[in-house]
Amino acid sequence: MNTSGTPDTLDRMHHVAIAVADIASAVAWYTSTFRCTVSYQDATWALLDFDNLQLALVIPEQHPPHIAFISPEAESFGALTTRRDGTRSTYVNDPAGNSVEIMAAD
Amino acid sequence: MNTSGTPDTLDRMHHVAIAVADIASAVAWYTSTFRCTVSYQDATWALLDFDNLQLALVIPEQHPPHIAFISPEAESFGALTTRRDGTRSTYVNDPAGNSVEIMAAD
Repeated sequence: MNTSGTPDTLDRMHHVAIAVADIASAVAWYTSTFRCTVSYQDATWALLDFDNLQLALVIPEQHPPHIAFISPEAESFGALTTRRDGTRSTYVNDPAGNSVEIMAAD
Repeated sequence: MNTSGTPDTLDRMHHVAIAVADIASAVAWYTSTFRCTVSYQDATWALLDFDNLQLALVIPEQHPPHIAFISPEAESFGALTTRRDGTRSTYVNDPAGNSVEIMAAD
């Protein structure tokens, strides 16, 4: 938590996951519209690399849209789940109900 | 457009604008949860600085949620509108209907 004025270091957003209707057509549009590369893709979601973060394209019935930040205090928000790629994270909701993933810094 | 294989340079996401119900409570939550700073705030939207991009919190009836990228080919997507902060951009929709802002690189 930031409990004392202006932080010396700002936290990073790791990725944004937005809802799309069809993964293949969304991947085709983003990769033809922007300079980005496909890190992962299946029928239910895809992960695109941009210069400063990743954009996830998700079928919302299978993967909820959310924003994800890296925090050195991730453990304070709940038990962390280890993903297949080795990252550890938990999910919380902001006051408006948006899903926010908090990822450990390691 | 990326028309030839793997790009040498990837485009940057400049900001993400997500819908919230109340700006003040959302700003309070994000600034107490993460190390970020408030770049702008009024009753209809706020802009938070993170390490690698900005997070906009918007009342959706007044400012549509979207994701924004910087592109050297922004002009090819339509006439650019100059904002109060001097940035120039246009809006397009991805195939799923998500609003995508394309900002000039200058």
